[in-house]
Amino acid sequence: MTDTPLSPETLDRLRASFDAQGLMRHLGASIVAALPGHVTLRLPFRRELTQQHGYFHAGGTAALADSAGGYAAFTLFPPGHDVLTTEFKLNLLNPAQGDWLEAEGRVVKPGRTLTICQLDVWGVGGGQRTHVATGLQTLICIKPRPATS
Amino acid sequence: MTDTPLSPETLDRLRASFDAQGLMRHLGASIVAALPGHVTLRLPFRRELTQQHGYFHAGGTAALADSAGGYAAFTLFPPGHDVLTTEFKLNLLNPAQGDWLEAEGRVVKPGRTLTICQLDVWGVGGGQRTHVATGLQTLICIKPRPATS
Amino acid sequence: MTDTPLSPETLDRLRASFDAQGLMRHLGASIVAALPGHVTLRLPFRRELTQQHGYFHAGGTAALADSAGGYAAFTLFPPGHDVLTTEFKLNLLNPAQGDWLEAEGRVVKPGRTLTICQLDVWGVGGGQRTHVATGLQTLICIKPRPATS
Amino acid sequence: MTDTPLSPETLDRLRASFDAQGLMRHLGASIVAALPGHVTLRLPFRRELTQQHGYFHAGGTAALADSAGGYAAFTLFPPGHDVLTTEFKLNLLNPAQGDWLEAEGRVVKPGRTLTICQLDVWGVGGGQRTHVATGLQTLICIKPRPATS
Repeated sequence: MTDTPLSPETLDRLRASFDAQGLMRHLGASIVAALPGHVTLRLPFRRELTQQHGYFHAGGTAALADSAGGYAAFTLFPPGHDVLTTEFKLNLLNPAQGDWLEAEGRVVKPGRTLTICQLDVWGVGGGQRTHVATGLQTLICIKPRPATS
Repeated sequence: MTDTPLSPETLDRLRASFDAQGLMRHLGASIVAALPGHVTLRLPFRRELTQQHGYFHAGGTAALADSAGGYAAFTLFPPGHDVLTTEFKLNLLNPAQGDWLEAEGRVVKPGRTLTICQLDVWGVGGGQRTHVATGLQTLICIKPRPATS
Repeated sequence: MTDTPLSPETLDRLRASFDAQGLMRHLGASIVAALPGHVTLRLPFRRELTQQHGYFHAGGTAALADSAGGYAAFTLFPPGHDVLTTEFKLNLLNPAQGDWLEAEGRVVKPGRTLTICQLDVWGVGGGQRTHVATGLQTLICIKPRPATS
Repeated sequence: MTDTPLSPETLDRLRASFDAQGLMRHLGASIVAALPGHVTLRLPFRRELTQQHGYFHAGGTAALADSAGGYAAFTLFPPGHDVLTTEFKLNLLNPAQGDWLEAEGRVVKPGRTLTICQLDVWGVGGGQRTHVATGLQTLICIKPRPATS
């Protein structure tokens, strides 16, 4: 949304949440950049991520895109709130090849309950950057449960 | 589409293609059932598949659903033809928990060029079967390239 | 969801809301059936609804499907609550032709905030019933605003 | 895609196709701008287009967006070829109000068989321009049938 950097507190929350995702570690993804409403993730190529032709599997592309959008929304939530994907849709534009994938999530419409993100995935390698997928995603903000005494 | 079993030749092609998918092996998925236009995959729970709350990550759910639909379409294609996902959309209905996920892909509309599948994912465990996600997917049939001499 | 009929009060609310939709009247749509979580609408063919080949325009198909799903969700809401579509996706399966279109909305997952519906549209005519479109839709329940004194 | 104007021949084909759409005339839509891969349509407010709260009905928003994307793809097709929507998805971001709606279709990925468009709808009025909806759409290029003698 802006070029203002995230507060250190928000960045810490984001990193803690990302590190708690077993799948992102298992795939080998990492955070490239995080600004308010805009998060970029990277996933280096490995044979463990391929479909039957040796390209990145659409499922890995989707997992990376979904996380990028989820964290883009998360950066705009108040402390203590969490994020869940309610739905997403992805159009696969080009074969997902390259040395790594880069997935960008950008908040199109923030909201107290629902946040809408645009998702874009790029295949990067050999001096090229190819638009691999574009998508839309709806996320819901989960309020913290009141403490019970 | 029917209860007719797949021909041994089609089943061999399906298994060979599935085994060539690095991602399905990396996640730990396997084929449960395959009938013409209807394929079911299974993904046992592992910490390596979780999101930040310890449930299955939506990205893993999506990868499994995408493959189930892709192979459901593939069972209806002529020998030598391959399948690519052009787009899919997934609604996440309930927390994806359980001992394993089961993803069903069913062909709603076969076609020479495009095939449309319905995707459904279930979380199974503790005697329960919960509807985790439902989706729609468009697949394209890739004709074999003519051999070059 | 069930075969229990709607309460007369819910049926009245549904009809009042439907009749307040200028677009449904302008297109010529009517309610065929309404059960809890399951609403069917009908749209007779007219030249005013066509695309460039003389079939029903995908936009009319979408309008009808969106309303069917919206009212399917509405039947499950408490009195005084209203419904808004947050997103929908439609796959167009066959040319939308026939004497009329029939759109079915069915609640797949009810919820206090979000409700998910499956949408199906059929073209009916000449003794045939063709599956014209299938879709998914997310709806949000709008709580009544507190009265101001 | 570019700022090059359309050829007069393409513009004629586009207008002839648009004028043949009964639904666009019935709703009151018109073409605002047409460039290669980028078409804008306008729909003035009328009571005949409303949902139950007096805003534009999501179905009208969808019809306009679908046509804008369809014609954006159409501008890139060779003469004699036609366009069909295979699927689209729309996220509704804000109440669709204003003096008119403006729908923009932009080709994200052209292709010989499939073309992918981004769809955006704006509500314009009272000096404001509100982002009402954003979407994605897949279109298929229909080749002319060989003449039969």
